Order: sequence, then C-alpha cells, then structure tokens
Amino acid sequence: MRVINFDHASGYAVDERVVEEMLKYLREDYGNASSTHSFGQKAKHALEEARKKVANFINAESEKEIVFTSGATEANNLAIKGYAFRNSRKGKHIIISAIEHLSVINCAKYLQKHGFKITYLPVDEHGIVDLEALKEAITPETILISVMHANNEIGTIEPIREIAEIAQDKKIAFHCDATASCGKISVDVEKLGVSMLTISSNDLQGPRGIGALYIRRGIALEPILHGGGQERGLRSGTENLASIAGFAKACEIAKEEMQANAEKMKELRNKIIDGVLSGIEETMLTGHREKRLPNHASFIFKYIEGESI
Amino acid sequence: MRVINFDHASGYAVDERVVEEMLKYLREDYGNASSTHSFGQKAKHALEEARKKVANFINAESEKEIVFTSGATEANNLAIKGYAFRNSRKGKHIIISAIEHLSVINCAKYLQKHGFKITYLPVDEHGIVDLEALKEAITPETILISVMHANNEIGTIEPIREIAEIAQDKKIAFHCDATASCGKISVDVEKLGVSMLTISSNDLQGPRGIGALYIRRGIALEPILHGGGQERGLRSGTENLASIAGFAKACEIAKEEMQANAEKMKELRNKIIDGVLSGIEETMLTGHREKRLPNHASFIFKYIEGESI
Repeated sequence: MRVINFDHASGYAVDERVVEEMLKYLREDYGNASSTHSFGQKAKHALEEARKKVANFINAESEKEIVFTSGATEANNLAIKGYAFRNSRKGKHIIISAIEHLSVINCAKYLQKHGFKITYLPVDEHGIVDLEALKEAITPETILISVMHANNEIGTIEPIREIAEIAQDKKIAFHCDATASCGKISVDVEKLGVSMLTISSNDLQGPRGIGALYIRRGIALEPILHGGGQERGLRSGTENLASIAGFAKACEIAKEEMQANAEKMKELRNKIIDGVLSGIEETMLTGHREKRLPNHASFIFKYIEGESI
Repeated sequence: MRVINFDHASGYAVDERVVEEMLKYLREDYGNASSTHSFGQKAKHALEEARKKVANFINAESEKEIVFTSGATEANNLAIKGYAFRNSRKGKHIIISAIEHLSVINCAKYLQKHGFKITYLPVDEHGIVDLEALKEAITPETILISVMHANNEIGTIEPIREIAEIAQDKKIAFHCDATASCGKISVDVEKLGVSMLTISSNDLQGPRGIGALYIRRGIALEPILHGGGQERGLRSGTENLASIAGFAKACEIAKEEMQANAEKMKELRNKIIDGVLSGIEETMLTGHREKRLPNHASFIFKYIEGESI
C-alpha cells in the first residue's frame, strides 16, 4: 500500500539540497559567530551570507531587517509582545484577525492580562478579513495590527496590501504572519507594505526550529529572550548556524522554483477540489475558491468525524 | 600549519553519531509530533524516546520533568523569568551569583525593571560562591536562587549541593545553569538537589539551537513563548525533532564516555596548566586549581591584549 501524507503542510522530509547545506556546518568546525578569533569570523561570515539570502527572499531593503528566531512561534511572540511592551506609551490597543495562528492569539490574550485591549476582527464566509470592520476598530490608542498572509487551515489569502495602507494612513505598525504563505506565493515586504513579517523554515521544506522576523527600519521592539545580545540585542542565544544556513538555502530554492511549483500545485489543487466536490456528496470547500494558496485544499465532510479521515 | 582551536568550548564539529541520528529525521518524513494522524504519532514516539534519554542523562525522576527549548539561553529565561512572574505573590527577591552567564544576569536585570529585587552574590578569588553571603542574603521575600554549576570562562565548579540544602531549608526554588558542566562532569539533579536545571546540546558536541530545562515536579512556571501549547504549555512552537533527537543522542554518548574522557582531559589540562605556569613568565591561572572542569584551563597573560592571543 502506498501511503500519501495529506498533511504535507505540517510534516515533510527536508529538501536534500538543504540537508547538504546544513551538513557543512554540522560536520565542520565553523566556530561561534560571536567569537572574535578566526574560527568565529568564518561563522560570522556564513551567518551574514545566510541573512542576505533570507532578506533577498522577501525583498527586504537590508539584511539588517532580519532577526533569526527559533521558528514562527518565537517570531510572532517577538513581534506582538515585543512591539506591545516597547511601544505601550503610545497606546494599549491591538487589532488581530479572529483566525490568526495560536501563537498570535495567545500572545494577544497574554497582553490582555497585562492591560492591553484586543480587538478580534471578524472574517467573511471565505475567511477574508472585513476591511470596514478594521477601519471602525481603529482608535487613537491602536498601536499594532496583526493579520496573517494566508490561513494555514483553510488556505485563504488575506488582503495584506489593503490592510497595510489603512495601517500606514493611521501610523499604526502592521505585523503579518507569512508562515503559511512563504514558499507558496510571493512574499514581498515592499509590495505588501508591512512593518514586520514572520517567516518560517518549516513551510519551505527547510529544517524545523528556525525562522525569522522581518523588522522594518525604525520599528523598535523589546526582546523576548535576554542574554548575550546576539541579533543586535533582539534575540539572545548562540546562533544556530547549521539551521540558519539550511533555512537560507530553502529560501533561495523557493525563490527560484516557486513560480513553476505554484502552477503545478494550482492545477493539482483544482483537480482535487473539483473531484471531491463533484464526486463525494455532502462536502464543502473551506476558504475562498480563488484567493487561496496554490497548494491548499481543505473540505468539510459532513457527518464524518475528523479523526477517522 | 596545523591550526588548533583553543576555544573548543564555544566552536566544534557535531559528533558524527549525532549527525547520523539527526539525518534520520531530516531526510525522512516523520510528521509533526503534535498531529493526531499516523505520521504524527511516529514523530511523537521519537520525541518521547528522546525526552527519556535526556531525563536519564541528568537522572531526572520522570521525563515529564524535561522541557525542550531552543537552547540554554531560552532555558535560563524560562527558569528565571518564568518562575519569577508565576510566583511573584510569594515574594519578589531573587539571588544570583555575580558570575552567572549573561542570559541569567540580563534576565535578572529585566526583572529588576519589573519590581523585583536582585542580590548578586560575591565569589572568592577562585570564583567560588560565598555560602555565608548566601545565607545572609536570604529574606522572607526570597523566592529563587540561581547559581551555575561550572563557570564557562574560568572553569570553577560551584558548591551546588550545599546551596541546594540552604535553599531547601528555606523552601526557596533553586535553579542551576549546567550549560558548561554537562558532558564534562556528572550532572545529577537528585544528587545536586536542584529545583530547575539548564542543559544545552552545545556543550555535548550536539547540534546548536537546542537545549532543555529540567523542572522538578511541583515547580510552576509562566511560559515565555505563547502559542500552540507544546511541551505541556510551557514552550510553544513545532517540536524541532531532528535537533531534539541529535541532542538526546549526544546525551547518551556523553553518559557512556564522559568518565573516560574526563580522565584523559584532566591529565591534558594539568599538563597545559603546569606547562604554561612554569614556562611562561607573568601568567596566572584563573579559577580554582582543583575544583574546575576537567577540560578547562584559562589564564591571565599579563601585558598582552586578549585579541592578539
């Protein structure tokens, strides 16, 4: 029997080209990127090369806008809690969509306990954020908006550019969690107009346990992890060079191959959607039919428990 | 010219047996340990096997006392800030040694800004914590003591068992950062009598970016990273299985080989110490001559800048 994993968005084998890149730094002594001696300098150089690749992948103006973290959860924590605590003097109101990842929602709940007011933006039947509700929710106290680029469960792509324009107009910082979209559709921080953006190696078939937060120049954050002051003081801890290099390689590969992959995926996706909807009774597509990730199809099968599927 | 890296405590190649263990999880689809389907179950099983190996390495009573983190810095942050914020109703005084790692010191400074009082314990000329000063520093407000097992810069081993007895007597939680000692000398949480203990894969020639906090049953912490509730709610984020498995393998290897290695290392260390002290004028050993890590020798070379060495 051939087993097909339909939850590829969650489990996968790491791309072999990425594994080879990681092995360089696992098998050879590259030193500690924070040391001053020659071994350390070699590591530092490799670290900065990796940072450039990640910056390039999302079209950041400078690699200085990239902070490596232990993954998307930490990047979201740094963006939401880090921005809130550092900028609380400007106001204590934050707006997030109702369908954010738990790492955003639970940061918001934590902030609520610390005196912040949170608005959860409603979404329509396709999972798309209501822009009118966003405009109405904004108050002079609003300091931060966080809306994901695409939803990992239902695949819907959110109108990030439009949200960014609203945020810019009101001088509110805007964080976007691009964990589910990166590697699937173009993630361009200039075109999207975001202040902060989370990407994860996970969704690029890179190693787990590594990710990055894009932080536009001028945005100030309080660190979540205190210590040796790595990552310009924003993320302490010895740099995980093998995983960072693997992550950067995965970004490079995604940049080159994404377009062609997306076309293939879209075709396959539409075949699956049409097949399921026409071939199986009492099924419903979740999310938007067109504004969805090219690799993503999710359904409601009525009268069947999720576990048995 | 053969180059010898004298900063092996900081930079190294990962043990090949560890690399092979990691490759299993990088090259094969082991799923997501938090998923319910069969792929996920395989990952969950591997995760729990790794947790047992780490628990066994430090002689924890149960693998449930192990929480995986992105490294020692995060484990120290979780222990210090997590304990302080969760237990602040009992008191707001914390005692740490003056020679802790920056990840402990900077957490203490952060807590100071949040209304905690910090006492920095003095050390003697060998870097050993003053137990009398500790006893005097304790007040009814004291909730936490943090002293490292061995100092990474000078190699001195601290009297952890004695500190634990003082802490237990006063019902104060005691955290110990064993980053520099693990893999070099025995780290046994029962013999040491600690409430929490940090270990890191780094110092076991395992992969970077992974570590663990031992949390004795009954000790309650507030999480640092909020999200999907992994690691029993104490550390959210998709489990980094390849690195966790590599870390566990490194623990297993260290447990088997540490004793023999330590003997060899001690001999070499003493040779270097004797050689440098007798052969080079105006040199001084830092730290304690006997109560020091078997793999550790550090000196003061008078009149020479550190950078040029």
